Amino acid sequence: MAVIAVLGYGTVGSGVVEVMNTNRELIQSKAEQPVDIKYVLDLRDFPGDPIQNMITHNYDDILNDPEVEVVVEVMGGVDPAYSFVKSALQSGKSVCTSNKELVAAHGAELMRIAKENNVNFLFEASVGGGIPIIRPINRSITSDRIEAVTGILNGTTNYMLTKMDTEGLDYEDVLKDAQAKGYAERNPAADVEGYDACRKIAILASLATEKTVSYEDIYTEGITNISTTDMLYAQKLGGIIKLLGKAGFEDGRVWARVAPAVVSSDNPLSMVSDVFNAILLKGNMLGDVMFYGRGAGKLPTASAVVSDIVDAVRHRNINLGIKWSEEKQELMDIDDVKVSKLVRVEYAQKDSAIAAVGNIFAAKDIIELEGAEDEFAFVTKKASESEINSRLEELLNTDGINGILNTIRMEG
Amino acid sequence: MAVIAVLGYGTVGSGVVEVMNTNRELIQSKAEQPVDIKYVLDLRDFPGDPIQNMITHNYDDILNDPEVEVVVEVMGGVDPAYSFVKSALQSGKSVCTSNKELVAAHGAELMRIAKENNVNFLFEASVGGGIPIIRPINRSITSDRIEAVTGILNGTTNYMLTKMDTEGLDYEDVLKDAQAKGYAERNPAADVEGYDACRKIAILASLATEKTVSYEDIYTEGITNISTTDMLYAQKLGGIIKLLGKAGFEDGRVWARVAPAVVSSDNPLSMVSDVFNAILLKGNMLGDVMFYGRGAGKLPTASAVVSDIVDAVRHRNINLGIKWSEEKQELMDIDDVKVSKLVRVEYAQKDSAIAAVGNIFAAKDIIELEGAEDEFAFVTKKASESEINSRLEELLNTDGINGILNTIRMEG
Repeated sequence: MAVIAVLGYGTVGSGVVEVMNTNRELIQSKAEQPVDIKYVLDLRDFPGDPIQNMITHNYDDILNDPEVEVVVEVMGGVDPAYSFVKSALQSGKSVCTSNKELVAAHGAELMRIAKENNVNFLFEASVGGGIPIIRPINRSITSDRIEAVTGILNGTTNYMLTKMDTEGLDYEDVLKDAQAKGYAERNPAADVEGYDACRKIAILASLATEKTVSYEDIYTEGITNISTTDMLYAQKLGGIIKLLGKAGFEDGRVWARVAPAVVSSDNPLSMVSDVFNAILLKGNMLGDVMFYGRGAGKLPTASAVVSDIVDAVRHRNINLGIKWSEEKQELMDIDDVKVSKLVRVEYAQKDSAIAAVGNIFAAKDIIELEGAEDEFAFVTKKASESEINSRLEELLNTDGINGILNTIRMEG
Repeated sequence: MAVIAVLGYGTVGSGVVEVMNTNRELIQSKAEQPVDIKYVLDLRDFPGDPIQNMITHNYDDILNDPEVEVVVEVMGGVDPAYSFVKSALQSGKSVCTSNKELVAAHGAELMRIAKENNVNFLFEASVGGGIPIIRPINRSITSDRIEAVTGILNGTTNYMLTKMDTEGLDYEDVLKDAQAKGYAERNPAADVEGYDACRKIAILASLATEKTVSYEDIYTEGITNISTTDMLYAQKLGGIIKLLGKAGFEDGRVWARVAPAVVSSDNPLSMVSDVFNAILLKGNMLGDVMFYGRGAGKLPTASAVVSDIVDAVRHRNINLGIKWSEEKQELMDIDDVKVSKLVRVEYAQKDSAIAAVGNIFAAKDIIELEGAEDEFAFVTKKASESEINSRLEELLNTDGINGILNTIRMEG
């Protein structure tokens, strides 16, 4: 018999209660014992709700109850989640969390404290919602050197970009639509500026390097500059624009970034539409493997949390030994990372602009869009970001060129 | 320190040696100890090969060596693999295998023997090659009732169908191409008749039900009757024809089949091309999750085998408790399973044929292909296979209808 406390009765918290109730017998069978919720911590009361008698407003009730074996942290945000989780682990309780901010900010430390106390800190739901990805990285991809992790890690922006691509709607219109549907917050920055994806790629990169990749070190660019014209150029190239979190591991050097990219149609990530997420891993032996599913939502996220509860209960007093140390993983300067970019050029004089692109970038294939006046686009060869930027500056100073309208990275 | 023996130095066996050598340090770190191969069992000698001194022709050398902790069975086929694996487990050695025939035929029994001897019988590579799927089902999808498992489980046929779809080539031509590329055997029956996919869906269905789904009970239809004309009809419907292994779990009843199906373009399986495989799970809380990657090939398959070795070594004397009993899981009669079908009709008199389809199937949308003379197609409503078959018989006995050219199941 395992006794659980849930911190936070919001979307995910109520989902955890629903999953535990709906699949009670199955979960008991997988956990090899009954699993019951004793407390739900929330500031509010929920009169009439089946959990009304489990509600406590005082975290100490949970912390000081030796019966509580697993604390489920689904409050979100770093404070007070961090201090609650830390004290739970120090009291010998395992913790399962869906909280990407917490994991990105304090994952390694919490993992160490869990180990010191012979319990577990599990966070399957913090990346990719319901998609099994944390456990597969830790326990399935154990014979491969991971060369790259690339993910569509934010459902809101993927919904917006899909709609811009398929319906030709403007950024502002799809944002309003996403807000109306409840996918985007009133203040959408966490999604559209890439901050959410940034924390998730930081977690994945940390697991891949077994050190701490700090999310603050990751170059992060959102989708606010993506227009329907960009989408049309991407389509002409046989691709689609996606917001990718990506980390590369080459020759002992590590880099990571969040940015929109033109994903070619033969890349399986190009097929990930709407609110779905996916994570593509490249192993040196395995090649590409992709994990796909619902990256958010009450029940999928709660399902991942409950799978962690089952794991915690099955590994009572056995630390699962996830390798993620507090040692900082230095990242390459993003300027040194090699990319290829789609560049949109506004010209004053077309022929001389094309000639300049040919001279400076050795790019011959000019892409033109019907209806896009005084502009064309081209794709650079692969080079470091800094080299591309200095060539762009040179281009900008050339007669016949009025401006650079946008640049978007290409993803093979 | 863990000592390994590899049974069979064919494609996968030599891949296992290559993965262990290439990623030696990483594997040692994940396994938390050195992992070394001491024996390779093969009938042949390999003079000059780095493993030449490890070769033995006598299985007893391995069985009777108490140092050997993990036996890797990558010979394929049921005999003598079955007796080798059984005696290894009985001697207290864990076994990792890529052998789907063996797992489909004797999985539950070997799992029981492993448990009795406090060792492990692991088979990640037996389904989906390098794709992590067995371990995620057993250890990640632990809070969901699985409602359906649908997979593109055979790379050879997926390569052939992709080529028929994109290049408009005939079945016979793509078969020759697949044979020339080494994807298909001289006798291609195991692939093209669906036998390979059948064993894999039997394994997945057994894990989902925790009982034994016998592959012999599974309705199995290959791709030999699929033509480029069928492909064109599928395209007109916005879909693509794939060979699917599928098992459904509804109201305590279980069914399974292997058959070609028209997969609609909003189903993520439609995007799985060439030799890639994918498995789509539907959980009652999670919704859809998909696992995608290389379903075959030396290194991806070997990588999955080595991940099992790491798991076996990390769980020395701890049986992982995979739930798959020898109790037989009865399957629904396939005639009672509800489907919708694409039906191609050859007519003598078009108007009366269309009227008959309207009368008998209440189908109004007639699909016509340019160049396909004296025929059209329609899609039935969802009904049991037996109901559809009896209506097809009725249709066949109607004036104006010359024949039924093909029927293909529709996959949402």
